Amino acid sequence: MNRATTRVRTAYTRVAEANRPEIWITLRPQAEVEAEAAATPDDLPLSGTLLAVKGNIDVAGLPTTAGCPSYAYTPEADAEAVARLRAAGAIVLGTTNLDQFATGLVGTRSPYGAVRNAHDPARISGGSSSGSAVAVALGIADLALGTDTAGSGRVPAALNGIVGLKPTYGLVPTRGVVPACASIDCVTVFARTVAQAERALSFMADPAPPPPARAPGPWRIAIPGPGQLGELAPGWEAAYETASRQLRANGAELRDIDLTPFTEAAAMLYEGAFVAERYTAVGDFLDKAMSADPPLDNGLDPTVTAIITGARDIPAHRLFADQARLATLRASALAQLADADALLLPTTTEHPTLAAVAADPLAVNARLGRFTNSTNLFGLCAAAVPAGTVDGLPFGVMLVGPAHADARVARIAESLTTPPARIAVVGAHLTGQPLNGQLLALGAEFDRTTTTSSAYRLHALPTTPPKPGLVHVGPGRGASIEAEVWRIPAAGLGQLLTALPRPMALGRVTLADGTEVPGFLCEPEALRDAPDITHHGGWRGYLAAPAAQRRG
Amino acid sequence: MNRATTRVRTAYTRVAEANRPEIWITLRPQAEVEAEAAATPDDLPLSGTLLAVKGNIDVAGLPTTAGCPSYAYTPEADAEAVARLRAAGAIVLGTTNLDQFATGLVGTRSPYGAVRNAHDPARISGGSSSGSAVAVALGIADLALGTDTAGSGRVPAALNGIVGLKPTYGLVPTRGVVPACASIDCVTVFARTVAQAERALSFMADPAPPPPARAPGPWRIAIPGPGQLGELAPGWEAAYETASRQLRANGAELRDIDLTPFTEAAAMLYEGAFVAERYTAVGDFLDKAMSADPPLDNGLDPTVTAIITGARDIPAHRLFADQARLATLRASALAQLADADALLLPTTTEHPTLAAVAADPLAVNARLGRFTNSTNLFGLCAAAVPAGTVDGLPFGVMLVGPAHADARVARIAESLTTPPARIAVVGAHLTGQPLNGQLLALGAEFDRTTTTSSAYRLHALPTTPPKPGLVHVGPGRGASIEAEVWRIPAAGLGQLLTALPRPMALGRVTLADGTEVPGFLCEPEALRDAPDITHHGGWRGYLAAPAAQRRG
Repeated sequence: MNRATTRVRTAYTRVAEANRPEIWITLRPQAEVEAEAAATPDDLPLSGTLLAVKGNIDVAGLPTTAGCPSYAYTPEADAEAVARLRAAGAIVLGTTNLDQFATGLVGTRSPYGAVRNAHDPARISGGSSSGSAVAVALGIADLALGTDTAGSGRVPAALNGIVGLKPTYGLVPTRGVVPACASIDCVTVFARTVAQAERALSFMADPAPPPPARAPGPWRIAIPGPGQLGELAPGWEAAYETASRQLRANGAELRDIDLTPFTEAAAMLYEGAFVAERYTAVGDFLDKAMSADPPLDNGLDPTVTAIITGARDIPAHRLFADQARLATLRASALAQLADADALLLPTTTEHPTLAAVAADPLAVNARLGRFTNSTNLFGLCAAAVPAGTVDGLPFGVMLVGPAHADARVARIAESLTTPPARIAVVGAHLTGQPLNGQLLALGAEFDRTTTTSSAYRLHALPTTPPKPGLVHVGPGRGASIEAEVWRIPAAGLGQLLTALPRPMALGRVTLADGTEVPGFLCEPEALRDAPDITHHGGWRGYLAAPAAQRRG
Repeated sequence: MNRATTRVRTAYTRVAEANRPEIWITLRPQAEVEAEAAATPDDLPLSGTLLAVKGNIDVAGLPTTAGCPSYAYTPEADAEAVARLRAAGAIVLGTTNLDQFATGLVGTRSPYGAVRNAHDPARISGGSSSGSAVAVALGIADLALGTDTAGSGRVPAALNGIVGLKPTYGLVPTRGVVPACASIDCVTVFARTVAQAERALSFMADPAPPPPARAPGPWRIAIPGPGQLGELAPGWEAAYETASRQLRANGAELRDIDLTPFTEAAAMLYEGAFVAERYTAVGDFLDKAMSADPPLDNGLDPTVTAIITGARDIPAHRLFADQARLATLRASALAQLADADALLLPTTTEHPTLAAVAADPLAVNARLGRFTNSTNLFGLCAAAVPAGTVDGLPFGVMLVGPAHADARVARIAESLTTPPARIAVVGAHLTGQPLNGQLLALGAEFDRTTTTSSAYRLHALPTTPPKPGLVHVGPGRGASIEAEVWRIPAAGLGQLLTALPRPMALGRVTLADGTEVPGFLCEPEALRDAPDITHHGGWRGYLAAPAAQRRG
């Protein structure tokens, strides 16, 4: 069985386990997908990668619904973005649910059912790329395509704890995509890591001009001035500040900017004349459906229909006025970003329940787009990434940068997803001991000398080179053992573990101050005949003792 | 005590432990460096970072020797590259030993002593940036500056198992650096990880033009056609092929090119007229020293003196001829690289002993530069990174790319330093179990279902959610336990460890086929009252058993 077939089987197992039928508008039959997987060569770059496609993007042979059954057509060809991923070896699982005509940030505006959040089924998935985000978050698909006009490729990433990349306008072809606002629509990609999302994008994108030049030095990150974030869900402002502190700890320089032009432009997206572009896209269809006798309104989402048909009579002179105002706001925003590599923002403002959205669909939706709506209007690119949890649910931030700085923005966003780790060492990795160089080679930096809590015992193991084995025995039965704490990149910690020989292990070590960090332990078997050297206070104390005293 | 002071103290401890006085030409007194550290604000971007500076680069107040005592002068100002790192918070430890006048790739051509390799004192450090590389490899300095004209910033990186970045010509100012061949000299940086080296470079470099555009898709890596690597040390060709396979496994496309223009240009560096530029730099000084009565040849390295003074009489018409030939070779090389993102090469060809170099200094040196010599002549940039070990000693490769593709080349090189890891799971992280999503969120991909070797027992731990504890008891005393192997990025494995709650641990698990991978174990304490469920064959077997049978 090739790699792709194995992956397909685990995906359909996940589909059954997850029991979230509302994710899909059309899920392809397992047998058909398995047959395609069996015929996929293992050496294609995306072999074994499963793709979910938002229901407003063409997949040859599957109905393109845009979330509206009566709008559906069955395309003969894949959308260009889908075709490029398939050519690289990705396999399409099916088309996913969305806010009808990609109009909404909630994931509830669909006759195919409200899409429940991957982590809490009482809450919204976010939208409009709702099913795509949840399919990735639940591990069913590895990649999913979304679209983003006002935040539809980012808000659901934040609410489901995954990565959403919104590339610069024009970088990924929109051929084969049902337009929402054609002049700013982007095809986006969801994945569980920035690396996976960037890899997918590398196949979807047209050749890009080089990014704008930047001065050397550390990342320069713009953040909103005091008080400018506005109202956020409880705990979200603190989570945002944690993310900004982490960037600073990684060496970035933070600088306040005035967020006003961004939030003012955001408010124009639905309040102003720009919404008329949605009428340009599907207004004729909606008018005909509603004026039929009887009206063909079965399957039309009432909120979406009201928004789009309500734009029919917006006069062109208002659009000229709005475009002029947007140009002013955009100039002000770009001037503020001129000296920054990216702007750090919470991706959205709160995580409502399905019930809260049902009670007030327009107001909640408007609040969710406060930070995302301006990105496309200003022609910027953005990367949304998970940034921890608040009350057990995902919290996300996004980095927003100038056109064609996609790779730079992704790099900064990725640095937030792999915070530096720490490790406690008690033996051969201590400063001056034989394996200390291993830590240094992995990029570790000395933090401090301390001791474990008094719940540990230390044994001398018969290893080469000699090492101690630290074992947790519980408070009152052990002693405090000398330890060093080192800062280490997460990848370095992973590499250290990969190179670790039996009987050593890495687990959780409690330090004297009560904090817990990853640290060296050992397998129980190794302790059996290993002398207890706890009374030496640590490995260095044991080594310094005269040979005759080096006993248990 | 601030972070910088702590770091300085550990550095001088390392200096004493390492006992490699030949690293330094001038090591600053600890008290002086500590005083500077104490005055360094903790919030500068490079606070706590210690810098070693190659002895041909000016550090204000320390003699600049270029490895020749009689050439020495004491500059009043730092070289521009040093000044920029200091302004960012780095602290200079001192100036390091080098092949005299940066002429050599061996690290033995110095009256301050041959610099011994960090990993095997019987072997060469490589040069000419010998002391800088060893100071970083031994963990004394975090960063070190070198220079690179023919490979001096890369060969010692490879032989000491560290990273060496040779930026595009002109990107880092050479003001305050003793020239070797001024038209191609580059200031380079050594560090233990690509991230640290790139960070340093971001402070040293002038604003750069954007990199050349590339088509989308996976990295396209050029490799030499069959047989073109020429003679390498035993095991090095296999290690090189492992690196190229790893790039392919990461999704890169490999394509053969003809290495001939590169190796032919490399041979021209010392055989042709280009060596005359070294006479331009220091020929007058050497002539005066040698023609004094008696000759002031104390401290002149005889090999270096012979090379440079031997270039005195090379006629300019030969230089014109060589430049024309180089232009042809360069055009051919760039045409071959046009469709590639970088060229993968071994950094050097062998790791000679000090004795082997002493026996035949010129021939060994020429062999060491076979792959590096052409980079600067062709105006390319390069990143040298560790790529495993051969016979217990470091092996290194380099990625060579077009001018101003520095970041791209570093990215590809970095991907070689953090190969994807694997992890064996036996309980709550299995497919369909409650913590499987944790693996998925970290970018893990399912590899296969297997069992452990028959040396394990499984216990049901009283954790929430319920988890099993796997324990190695030795062959004949345990059984084979159902396990899944997952591929996971090294950073994801590090993050998993950081989030691991007591009593779980990660160590080495032996699988049925005898391979060992990192996998879940647990602390011995947790096993005490935990029922032995080995006879169920695995966690899923235990969970599937009727409740009455779920016992030890």
